Formats: sequence, structure tokens, C-alpha cells
Amino acid sequence: MKRVRSKGGMEVKCPRNRVVVRVPATTANMGPGFDALGMGIDIWNEISVERAGSFSIETEGEGVGAIPEEVGPNGESKHTVMVALKRAFEYAGETLPPVRVCCRNRVPVCSGFGSSSAAIVGGLVAGLALAGTEVRAGYDPNQSQLPEELLQLATEMEGHPDNVSPAIYGGIQLSVQLCAIATAEPRENPQLALSRRVPTPEGMRLVAYVPSEKTRFSFASKDKTTEMRALLPATIPRADAVFNIQRTALLIDALHHGDLSMLKYATEDMLHQPQRATIYPHLIPMVRAAVTAGAHGAFLSGAGPTVLAICSGATGADIFTQAREERQEMKVAEAMRSAVNALPAKADQWKDGKFYICSPCMQGAHVVAADPPLSDTMATFGTLDGML
Amino acid sequence: MKRVRSKGGMEVKCPRNRVVVRVPATTANMGPGFDALGMGIDIWNEISVERAGSFSIETEGEGVGAIPEEVGPNGESKHTVMVALKRAFEYAGETLPPVRVCCRNRVPVCSGFGSSSAAIVGGLVAGLALAGTEVRAGYDPNQSQLPEELLQLATEMEGHPDNVSPAIYGGIQLSVQLCAIATAEPRENPQLALSRRVPTPEGMRLVAYVPSEKTRFSFASKDKTTEMRALLPATIPRADAVFNIQRTALLIDALHHGDLSMLKYATEDMLHQPQRATIYPHLIPMVRAAVTAGAHGAFLSGAGPTVLAICSGATGADIFTQAREERQEMKVAEAMRSAVNALPAKADQWKDGKFYICSPCMQGAHVVAADPPLSDTMATFGTLDGML
Repeated sequence: MKRVRSKGGMEVKCPRNRVVVRVPATTANMGPGFDALGMGIDIWNEISVERAGSFSIETEGEGVGAIPEEVGPNGESKHTVMVALKRAFEYAGETLPPVRVCCRNRVPVCSGFGSSSAAIVGGLVAGLALAGTEVRAGYDPNQSQLPEELLQLATEMEGHPDNVSPAIYGGIQLSVQLCAIATAEPRENPQLALSRRVPTPEGMRLVAYVPSEKTRFSFASKDKTTEMRALLPATIPRADAVFNIQRTALLIDALHHGDLSMLKYATEDMLHQPQRATIYPHLIPMVRAAVTAGAHGAFLSGAGPTVLAICSGATGADIFTQAREERQEMKVAEAMRSAVNALPAKADQWKDGKFYICSPCMQGAHVVAADPPLSDTMATFGTLDGML
Repeated sequence: MKRVRSKGGMEVKCPRNRVVVRVPATTANMGPGFDALGMGIDIWNEISVERAGSFSIETEGEGVGAIPEEVGPNGESKHTVMVALKRAFEYAGETLPPVRVCCRNRVPVCSGFGSSSAAIVGGLVAGLALAGTEVRAGYDPNQSQLPEELLQLATEMEGHPDNVSPAIYGGIQLSVQLCAIATAEPRENPQLALSRRVPTPEGMRLVAYVPSEKTRFSFASKDKTTEMRALLPATIPRADAVFNIQRTALLIDALHHGDLSMLKYATEDMLHQPQRATIYPHLIPMVRAAVTAGAHGAFLSGAGPTVLAICSGATGADIFTQAREERQEMKVAEAMRSAVNALPAKADQWKDGKFYICSPCMQGAHVVAADPPLSDTMATFGTLDGML
């Protein structure tokens, strides 16, 4: 492949034949941090993009048959990965060439685990790597250019930054949407969002109950997030805002201190959970059951319907050295299972879900393989197919 | 004085003849943390309470002539310190005996510097010390009894915890009002509030513009806080709540990192400042001027009218070794002065204020002298009158 050097001599473009990107699931809100907080979760999608004679999309795993794979001769598609690939090339000043896209999905679709953000961020990273364009990461207050370019691109596509931030950076991220307000001078740059990593306490384990695919798809229209947001009134009591502000402050403080004992207060919410509980009958019984069984806190993951509880190994030891009965997450999952099973018969569709016992992931989207490689001197990672 | 030992043998009461308590000014909200965040400030009131033949109140300094000093033969009074003394004795299971109260006020009254909380907390601490009752401080999740007793008492009197918390504990405090909500089991204990200390970045200096006493008193009725709260609608746009939640998260995170560069975003607010700016014409021009002149952030202190800017020594050195022109706070104060002077003539009443260049204080209300002393072995502090 050709290497392109810009006239300024600074920008080096290295277009590639093929890239493989991994991107994590994410949970958003975490209770009180509505549209503000998110966390990466170690459930990964792998997206492979290869230059080809014509456009094609293949899906394997979660969402097969539900995600539209049609793609036109010029790449016209409703598939979010393809849309993001086109946006990445457009940002790089090019047109997306024909590519063969293969998505290996492990993130449950329409579940509140950020599958949409994973597709956006994975597609953008794959597209930028394929085009061979580097983006500026990190935040530099003295930089006049747009900082955190990838975050801006992804936020623009998703509409809010709370899932895309941890999909990009991993860990727990707080996001702030920037805009000119009355008390501030108009901003010089068009930055949409900034994001900062909040410490993730050690040993955190997550117990997530994901209702069945059938329930998730039947119950919600295709644009679930929009529909779930329509449940939320545009105006709210001031007291509810104060409630969430106080708990958001406590949550950020508790995460910095690694003090999980505060999460039972710090994951409470009045802005979206009570409203969404009207159509998620499992939500409040499962949150209560989780906390009663020893979870530090529990909440609706994003717009749901997944309910997520934060646990830690009961003995504080490495989970592999612990007996099954010592592990808090098993007790919590069993209590959550009993709670959902105890729902009345009319809520039967919510009982047919499964548990994911998982962990926060500290890494965000990354290229696991590229041809030619990202670096001549550094080792490449293998993909699920082995080395490229 | 007699020492009383309870039948359990645990509780020791040591009533006193006289106590002197110091209690700091506080600022609340800090931009986005409406009813959630507060900070102690090194401007102190000193309250002296002495057992006497009859009730009396004397005031010196701020608020003289404006604070009602009348007191009935049984201690009936509108004076907040006297009300708090009565509450403290009631809590100790006793009746307040006749006392001579002397208040040396340095905290400007009706200014947004928490003078009401200072009177409540100072009166409670003085009363408890005079009665000789010890209260439990700190938070112990395994304790079935009411934790942080002083915070509960003060919050009950003030109605919200954001000023009383830093008045009790000093430093920057986040407060959470606890109450049963839909997703939680009913609480076992009647705890009203909990408070946690957030790190205070080193070298923070505060530039506070306090409008004249005449303006503060003439413009607002006696219950200024109630009146200022009436300006705030009971329902708010959801987007404004999200705005403040995002910035509260950023503020707590920035304080933990000691990263003052984030405060220009993290002190923005949509919940009370735009609304209060309608009657505080100096607010937005002074906030803008402060930030433009180099303050990290600026906001309305509590319910105002004080405007407070957060600065740091421009060179990072000890302020006493710095030349005047090196100190950021002087530039900021001058810019704020120019901004208020530039207001139209109809806003003339706001121009006649003064600047306090001050610092956060890390200590809250404390007994500086007692007779008999708090400890037989520890040294006592002197009061402004010298040693007792």
C-alpha cells in the first residue's frame, strides 16, 4: 500500500488493506448519572473490514437476522458499522471504497449494553485505520484544534456521549456536553463533548440480567432508545434533579475513594428509572433483590431492559481462588432470578433472560490486527481467526 | 462542676460554665451542585456562651442592629444562636438554663456566606458543649444509631445540608439527603443527611465580592433564602438537570485530581444562576470578568448576592513570597470591580460592595475554650479575649 505524506510533512497516511477492531459493551447512567456516566464492560464485538471488489456485510452472533445486512453498490446501508465507516472516510477526506465487513457480535442487541455505540465507535476506528488517518486523542486545553476528535465524531453520530466515551476509552467515563450558556463567553471551538476517566474500584464484578432477545425485539420498536426516551417527560421536578445531583457527586467521590459501601445511596435515581419501571416490571424488584442480597448497588443499564448489579468477591480474594459459595455475585444473581420469577404471569416474557457475570474493562476500542501492521516494530495481536 | 455518669457507665456528661465556639463561613452550590455541595471559608464567627442569672444576647460586628437581640425570661428568642442552644439542650434531655450569649460576627449577614448555618451550627456546638453531651460524628454503616448526629440536628433546623455540612466539618463537603425512594427498601433509621469530604486542591484562593449591607438588607426581606428560592420554578427542563449532573460529576472528579483547569466547565450552572441573575444584575458580568481575567471558575455563593471566584497564586508559590502583581486574585478582583462598575446607573446599589480575598478552611466549628476545659491534659486554645 502507498504511504501518503502531506505537504506540511507532518501528516503521514498509511492506508490499509484490512483491519480488525475490537470494541466493548458499555453501560450508561449508572443510576443517577443520566446522560453523564458510562462504563466499559468486558463483552466485546469484533469488526473486520477488508477492501474488496464490492460492498458486503456479514453478521455472526448477537443480532443475526435482526440487523439489516443490505448494502447498495455504493455502500448505501442502514447498518451502523457501514454508516460509521463512511463517516470515517469522509472525515479523512476520502470516499469509502468497496469493503467486506464482518461483525462478530457478542454484545446483546437492544439490551442497554451500548450495542449501537459499539457499532459507531468500532466502525469509526476501523474506518480511520483503514484510511490510515490518525486522530488526536486526549484533551489539551491549549490546543485550538478540535480535541478528542474520535469522541466528537462518535457523539455527533450517537447524539449523546455517555456510551461512546467508555466504548472509546474504556473504564468509567464521565462526559460533559459543552455548549455556550448564559454565564460563559461563546466557545471558540465546536467541541461537542469532553470525557474524563473516573477510577474504577478494584475487584468490581458485574451481574447483569439481560431479558431474552425475543422480548427485547418484540417489546420495543427498532429504535428502542428513542422510544425509551419518549417515556421521559421534558420537564421534571427540581427536587428530582437535586436528588440526582447529590447522588452523582457521591458516586464520583465513592469511585475515587474505592468505597463501594456508598453505592447503595450513590446508584439511586429519580430521573429515568421510576419512569421506565412502568414498562419494565422486572426493574425495581430486581434492583431491590440485588441490594438485599449484598450487591453494592444496582441500576438499569442505559435505557434497559438489562438490570446491572455491582458486586465484589465476598472475601476480597482473587475470584479464581474462591469457592463458588464465597462469591457475592452468585448470591446476587440467584436473588435477582428469584425476584424476576416471582413476577405475576402477565410479566412472563421478562423471565426468559440470562445472566452475564462480567467485569468492567479498562480498555476501549482498539485495532487488534491490521495489514500492513500499525507498527513495523511492535508485535501485532492475534484475532479470533489467529494472526493475520 | 459535677460530672454525670450514666447507668451504662459509657456516657460521661461534663456540664460547663462557659464555652467559646468558632464557626466558619460557608459557600454553597459551587455552580452546578445545587443543594449538594458546600465549602468552608476562613471567615469566622466566635460565639461565647456563659451560664448567667438571666438570658441576654450581645452582637458585635456584622449584622449589629439588624439581628434581633430580644430574649424573653425563659430564653424565647428569634435569634438563631439562642434557638440552636435550646435545641441542643433539648437534645441532651435538659432545659436551657439562663445564659449570656456574645456573638462576634465576621461572616457577612444575608450575603450567601452561610451566616444562618454558622449561627445554627455554632449554637448547637456551644449548647452541646455547655450541656456536656458528646455527639457521635462520622458515618458508620454498621451502626444502628443515628450517625452524624450534629449534621442531622443542623440539617433539621436549616432544611438543607449544603451549608451546615462544611460549617460542621470544614473543607469541601458533598451532602446527600436520604429518603425512601421507589427502588429502595424503607430505611431503618431516620437519618436525614450524610456528608463526605471532597479533597480541596492546594493553593486555592477565593475572591468574593460582597455587595454592601445596605443593598443586601434593603433588597431582600428578612428571610432572604426563602425569597431567593421562590425565584426558582418547581419544575425544570430535563436538559438543565443533565447539564448540572454532568458538571457536578466533572467538579467532584476535578477536585479529586486537583485539576483546577476543568473548573471553567465544572462551575457552570443552569439550575439557579440564570434565574437569580434576573434580580442580581452584577452576577453574570462578574462571573464572565473573573474567568476572563484568569479565575479557574466563578459562581454565585449560595443564594447570593456574593459572587465568588476560585483562583490560585499565579506562580504557584506561597502567597507571602509573591509580589502583588503575581497574584492572580488581584487581577481577578480588579476585573470583577471593573465589570460591576460598568453596570448601568439603575444598578448603582450593587457597586457599593467590597472584596474578601480568602481561602477555603479545612476545619469546621470547634470549641476554642471551655471552663472547665474539654480535656485535663490537652492544651486549650486562646480566644480573642486571651485565655479563659
